Amino acid sequence: MDKSIDNRNFTLLTDFYELTMMQGYFERGESCNGRVIFDAFYRDNPCNGGYAIACGLDQVIDYIRDLHFSEDDIEYLREQKVFKEPFLEYLRNFRFSGDIYAIPEGSVVFPMEPLVKVVAPAMEAQLVETAILNFINHQSLIATKASRVCYAAGNDGVMEFGLRRAQGPDAGTLGARAAVIGGCIGTSNVVCAQMFDIPALGTHAHSWVMSFDNEVEAFRCYADLYPNNATLLVDTYDTLRSGVPAAIQVFKELRDAGRMPKKYGIRLDSGDLAYLSKKAYKMLNEAGFGDAIICASSDLDEYLINSLKLQGAKINSWGVGTNLITSKDWPAFGGVYKLSAMEIGGQFVPKIKLSENPVKITNPGNKTLFRIYDKETGKLYADLIALVGEKYDEKKDLLIFDPIATWKKTLLKGGTYTIREMLVPVFIGGKCVYKSDPVMKIREYCKQEQETLWEETRRFANPHEVYVDLSQPLYDMKKTLLDNIHNTNSAVNV
Amino acid sequence: MDKSIDNRNFTLLTDFYELTMMQGYFERGESCNGRVIFDAFYRDNPCNGGYAIACGLDQVIDYIRDLHFSEDDIEYLREQKVFKEPFLEYLRNFRFSGDIYAIPEGSVVFPMEPLVKVVAPAMEAQLVETAILNFINHQSLIATKASRVCYAAGNDGVMEFGLRRAQGPDAGTLGARAAVIGGCIGTSNVVCAQMFDIPALGTHAHSWVMSFDNEVEAFRCYADLYPNNATLLVDTYDTLRSGVPAAIQVFKELRDAGRMPKKYGIRLDSGDLAYLSKKAYKMLNEAGFGDAIICASSDLDEYLINSLKLQGAKINSWGVGTNLITSKDWPAFGGVYKLSAMEIGGQFVPKIKLSENPVKITNPGNKTLFRIYDKETGKLYADLIALVGEKYDEKKDLLIFDPIATWKKTLLKGGTYTIREMLVPVFIGGKCVYKSDPVMKIREYCKQEQETLWEETRRFANPHEVYVDLSQPLYDMKKTLLDNIHNTNSAVNV
Repeated sequence: MDKSIDNRNFTLLTDFYELTMMQGYFERGESCNGRVIFDAFYRDNPCNGGYAIACGLDQVIDYIRDLHFSEDDIEYLREQKVFKEPFLEYLRNFRFSGDIYAIPEGSVVFPMEPLVKVVAPAMEAQLVETAILNFINHQSLIATKASRVCYAAGNDGVMEFGLRRAQGPDAGTLGARAAVIGGCIGTSNVVCAQMFDIPALGTHAHSWVMSFDNEVEAFRCYADLYPNNATLLVDTYDTLRSGVPAAIQVFKELRDAGRMPKKYGIRLDSGDLAYLSKKAYKMLNEAGFGDAIICASSDLDEYLINSLKLQGAKINSWGVGTNLITSKDWPAFGGVYKLSAMEIGGQFVPKIKLSENPVKITNPGNKTLFRIYDKETGKLYADLIALVGEKYDEKKDLLIFDPIATWKKTLLKGGTYTIREMLVPVFIGGKCVYKSDPVMKIREYCKQEQETLWEETRRFANPHEVYVDLSQPLYDMKKTLLDNIHNTNSAVNV
Repeated sequence: MDKSIDNRNFTLLTDFYELTMMQGYFERGESCNGRVIFDAFYRDNPCNGGYAIACGLDQVIDYIRDLHFSEDDIEYLREQKVFKEPFLEYLRNFRFSGDIYAIPEGSVVFPMEPLVKVVAPAMEAQLVETAILNFINHQSLIATKASRVCYAAGNDGVMEFGLRRAQGPDAGTLGARAAVIGGCIGTSNVVCAQMFDIPALGTHAHSWVMSFDNEVEAFRCYADLYPNNATLLVDTYDTLRSGVPAAIQVFKELRDAGRMPKKYGIRLDSGDLAYLSKKAYKMLNEAGFGDAIICASSDLDEYLINSLKLQGAKINSWGVGTNLITSKDWPAFGGVYKLSAMEIGGQFVPKIKLSENPVKITNPGNKTLFRIYDKETGKLYADLIALVGEKYDEKKDLLIFDPIATWKKTLLKGGTYTIREMLVPVFIGGKCVYKSDPVMKIREYCKQEQETLWEETRRFANPHEVYVDLSQPLYDMKKTLLDNIHNTNSAVNV
């Protein structure tokens, strides 16, 4: 497809300091030839929710596969007058040669978990920081928001309608992709529908109605043109006094002519949606159109949909734009990318970053993530951030801790739980070893993933926090490093 | 440049309903061959501010110029099974043939003003709605946010650092473009710097420091590599006890060796920035480095910068990421695109959209925008939305009204004010007649534009609202249309 995102060269989609640091590692030579490990993770669930949906990996894969500096790129860097010729020469043949592990798209994830782990020479691992964070931060945010909106909508379909309010073309297109993974049934964005083979949705706008002398003519013409889907926008002039009666008149004509469309109904795009939908339903029902779709689309989000449901609004289809495509009340995922280990003499030496804020202290070492499920219900018990190589036996008892109030413990009896390793190999030695599913299939997987959550974790107000423990070996490693650094620091004279 | 945004085919970057409506206009034939007028405008200033900055026109121009349906696009539409062959055949030779008028990028603008006006056959004008809104909404939002952040920073430079938290690659790249137009001195985003010829900025990250045994080594190595700019990140372990002393030690070494860089200093990326910057300045000053740059970058926005200034923080350079690139507290501009007139028998017939909410009633007719300045100070008095063809004489007295409290009037004496028409031709008959300036030049223009605002309009709390009047002829036209529609509507029996 000629406009697939993987035809764009994103190599310079990076922060300038990644390149100056890269040159630094290059100049240091020998001492920087070993590999390093970086983890991409986030600290707070969007919208104060209980979980997030991992998303954006497919674009990371395209990006890494294509990574190369064109002659234009190299010339541009030369003009900056801070890069030397040997480094620019090195860039000419630059390719990503490392390993990447990631949690599959559509998985539910929690704070501090490594969503993406990069194991590569420092220069390579440093370069890819910015683009990886950009893709993962953006799409995980929108997939999470969509998951919340769709949860509020229950069994009703939610359509993604946000392109015009998105933060640029990619935000509209990759955002709609993420929204569908998070649960939307399709998008109004045609280029997204085309690129990712997902349903393109929508009917008509106010301008269509305004281009006719009256609403009946506008609706009649539209229904004639699209005999399979007559969803008519009824709020151009006056919803209950003009729009809905005009729609009913046209539906009657279609019924009388034996041409009733399979899918038909009205769309409300302004006003008090609870009141209008109930009144409109009554009018439609009395005319024999009780099965009409009543679609609403007007600054909706999960809270408003929730409230409309509680008010008994007669809406069974939702078009969500601005608040979903920008995640308006929480527009940044906040994922970070932190060094956790450096290879020295063939061994990974764990690294840690301190902070006066304890939650900002990183988890060191070469890590993976285990997820523990209740065997009977399939529900998620807890996650365990562990060191690569740790083994767990589902037949044995397992003690899990509340990560903050560590005196709160749960003993899982052997045989009652299952364990799954969440990080899977995506690149090994620079080669992609992972096959992404089509978006609509990731959407199905994401649905199953959300079903592993307890309702208590999905609710919007004060959701139950899923336990994310550190394994004992990781906890011990972290403690040792913290002690060591405090000893070193005291040697600095102020 | 091989990755310029204008090499992407954005033709299907549209809502599906634009295409179904297009086919509707196509099928209606004759009656829809006339031109229509659509206005893109917004209703509320971002962040409850007193103004916005228009931005994104250059991308609209690239998009309109390139507009065409590829064979792949047509085949994709055919597969949707709602488009007929004559329409698909028509798309094969589709080009934009209309006129576009717009307010130049970098201009200050106010609610209800037409930022972009499209005059074209209905099919063309309808298709371009979504992409025009996407570009203008996104970049006007970020340019406005940047203007606010830079206003708070006063004479200090503000660097755009948001790529990793932006909503996708375009949000990072076009967002950084808009941020520079709004006042930032440059961006960390290399691809943006390359595409738009703006300064690429940045130094090093925590990972650089962590890759050395201690901070002194890390800083020394960095300063050796980049002898012109040693801005050292000092908060990896402990800002005041380790980072700043290490930086001072390296600065002393450079000074002793006669290699003091022109630009040098420290960057604080966490902790209490007011406290840390004052302490760090004291330490630097006592060591003879009172002119060091003290750069801060940690979840900054205009309010925090304002507060830090009030607290006497010794910061003179600002790196702003997430809150700027997503406009976190106001992440959607909310611009709309509304039909205002239809050509019937060679005449433009004004059109209006009603709403129960009076501010949502559109302004009809073929409009333009006049801006009135005080001749002496060059400050902006008021804006006047008028009909095309209205003439104003700067030598004559002019009475302007408060748009809401219409009894509040100001008489401008002839000769004391100047008038400027803000909408300029961009496309005429499908041909581009406008030459965009380079981004750094638009930035200069934007600076001048902001200087036409009174301080009362720029302040963050309760800014003074700039008067945006309707001209008498426009007001009369609107009133007549409203009266007519109410008469028509009463004929609808409910």
